[in-house]
Amino acid sequence: MKTRRDFLQKLAAAGLALPVLSTMAKGSAMPILDTTPYDGPMLRVAIMGLGGYGSRVAEAMQDCKKARITGVISGTPSKIKDWQKKYNIPEKNCYNYSNFDAIKDNPDIDAVYVITPNALHREQVIRVAKAGKHAICEKPMALNAAEAQEMVDACKKANVKLLIGYRMHLEPKTLEIIRLRKEGKFGKILFFQGLSGFRIGDPTQWRLNKQLAGGGSMMDIGIYSVNGARYMVGEEPVWVTAQETKTDPVKFKDGVDETIQFQLGFPSGAVASCLSTYAMNNLDSFFLDGEKGFAELKPATGYGPIEGRTSFGELNFPHVTHQTVQMDEMAEMILNGKQPVVPMDGAEGLKDMKIIDAIYQAAKTGKKVPLSR
Amino acid sequence: MKTRRDFLQKLAAAGLALPVLSTMAKGSAMPILDTTPYDGPMLRVAIMGLGGYGSRVAEAMQDCKKARITGVISGTPSKIKDWQKKYNIPEKNCYNYSNFDAIKDNPDIDAVYVITPNALHREQVIRVAKAGKHAICEKPMALNAAEAQEMVDACKKANVKLLIGYRMHLEPKTLEIIRLRKEGKFGKILFFQGLSGFRIGDPTQWRLNKQLAGGGSMMDIGIYSVNGARYMVGEEPVWVTAQETKTDPVKFKDGVDETIQFQLGFPSGAVASCLSTYAMNNLDSFFLDGEKGFAELKPATGYGPIEGRTSFGELNFPHVTHQTVQMDEMAEMILNGKQPVVPMDGAEGLKDMKIIDAIYQAAKTGKKVPLSR
Repeated sequence: MKTRRDFLQKLAAAGLALPVLSTMAKGSAMPILDTTPYDGPMLRVAIMGLGGYGSRVAEAMQDCKKARITGVISGTPSKIKDWQKKYNIPEKNCYNYSNFDAIKDNPDIDAVYVITPNALHREQVIRVAKAGKHAICEKPMALNAAEAQEMVDACKKANVKLLIGYRMHLEPKTLEIIRLRKEGKFGKILFFQGLSGFRIGDPTQWRLNKQLAGGGSMMDIGIYSVNGARYMVGEEPVWVTAQETKTDPVKFKDGVDETIQFQLGFPSGAVASCLSTYAMNNLDSFFLDGEKGFAELKPATGYGPIEGRTSFGELNFPHVTHQTVQMDEMAEMILNGKQPVVPMDGAEGLKDMKIIDAIYQAAKTGKKVPLSR
Repeated sequence: MKTRRDFLQKLAAAGLALPVLSTMAKGSAMPILDTTPYDGPMLRVAIMGLGGYGSRVAEAMQDCKKARITGVISGTPSKIKDWQKKYNIPEKNCYNYSNFDAIKDNPDIDAVYVITPNALHREQVIRVAKAGKHAICEKPMALNAAEAQEMVDACKKANVKLLIGYRMHLEPKTLEIIRLRKEGKFGKILFFQGLSGFRIGDPTQWRLNKQLAGGGSMMDIGIYSVNGARYMVGEEPVWVTAQETKTDPVKFKDGVDETIQFQLGFPSGAVASCLSTYAMNNLDSFFLDGEKGFAELKPATGYGPIEGRTSFGELNFPHVTHQTVQMDEMAEMILNGKQPVVPMDGAEGLKDMKIIDAIYQAAKTGKKVPLSR
């Protein structure tokens, strides 16, 4: 117990409240999740979209203390059967895309996590809101800022919360860098660099379908650098420039971006240089440079352990599955009004969508696009 | 001796001819310079411009086998006196900027290394050529491509060589990456990233004077990323975009760029994302990404040991002072017509100047600037 207390005190001293994690396995340097009983309120979540990422979230939620899966929404009956069995979900909490508005009358479900192709988010989130349930939406929250605004408005009108799946906003090394930046440890921030990309496989997947994805790499992976630039620099950009490159027009059809370089300018004069790509292996790094020091995250946004260091030393925080932390923290946000250090709400998602709109415009026109603040 | 032979054989097997270095200090992992007698021809060099970098070159040349300092050209008599004493230079081999054309009649000098402010290079190199001496010119070779072309033409007409101080073209880790790239080890090249910058000090120095420097960070340090993009990717860019940011217009006056982001597009579809700055601490890294692997150099261009690795492992080549290697190799190029792996002649410098012209144009107009091949 001493080890655990020391560890938690150290975290507290670092000003960093680590969400879920807690007890240390005896004789091990690896933390495990808190298994002490929890009597507080529990967020009961229906997962909409039982694909790869939905499955990852569901697995991770098995370690949640404050959130659990109580329902599913899917167009594939066989998937629903599998999930029912795996997660002990009663028949009455299972829906398809036609009938899920009836979730309104289901007292077992507090929130719906929308993990479907991008093009469906807008309508689905609005229907969730109209059913009086809180909405959690995977990023990108929509195809563009106009859609995102509609979603924000609908949730506000329905008096439900709208949260976006920005799991990195709860990642300890990321938060520590943000804390150090706010404390002025890096001095005036000058430069951010974000590289976000991977080589995408199966050309038939929805992510490469303009109608379903709304774009290409920028929507799916480039958004990490867009979002990261904002939380790392700590300002909202005022201009954007962008350059698109396509080497494989068969795989990456019209409107599906393969590679986009983009640059952001911030009010302080800081600049960001970013890359979004579906054509390069495992690019996942953030670099923040200030007058007095720098910080690096590499990998910066992957599912596995994030590695980070600053000019003052390595960052050593234990890894906890991001989706577990996210869902426990979102339970706190929805049930208890907890405010995360970096916002995770619809307004936050809308900011990214406005920038992505501007990036596409800049790439298309070749012009610097101003962003309203 | 076995250690040395093994080492050299290994280098040879790696297809890498390491210029100067040779014997290993007994019982040490650090190489020392070859001290065996050398009977071949010796390049006799006059240094023009006895400032900080000129001094560094002179110091490094003390370890050269094939090149030595035999003359100086300076506007400051006291500096000439110091150098005469330090490097044992006879009075008859000392010149100032008015009379150095008389070098033409000096049989003790084969080449002049021009290490003066950028704005002076054009005229000085042309005068060296007219004096019938080979010219070595520090980079940037000129203020723009038009000047660079004049210099190339003048040296061609005078039948003298023109070499540019691209010391990285002889750096072992850099060359190893180029070798691996040519062998196809990284597969199709997709992306290059170059970060080149530092926080410049004394605001009164010539590098911050538009008349003498011809620009700002791009001329002085950004050129490393311009040049690096070309030798790392192995292609000539066909377009450039650029964005300039200025946070300190007092220190960085009109025409003196503080920070420029620039992007290059290559015929294969590969892209480069680069940063040139006088406002950020110690940015010096190259990253090359291909379909099958990547390479990193960090630091990539500093005077000290270059650190590098690829996706296949660390690069372990010993450090030898770059300027020593450069001057010995330039002796081979001038005296024996040796061709370096990456060209170091005026035509090579001209290519960089054309790109820098385009970067300034792109930054000014906000437009993508095509580059003729």
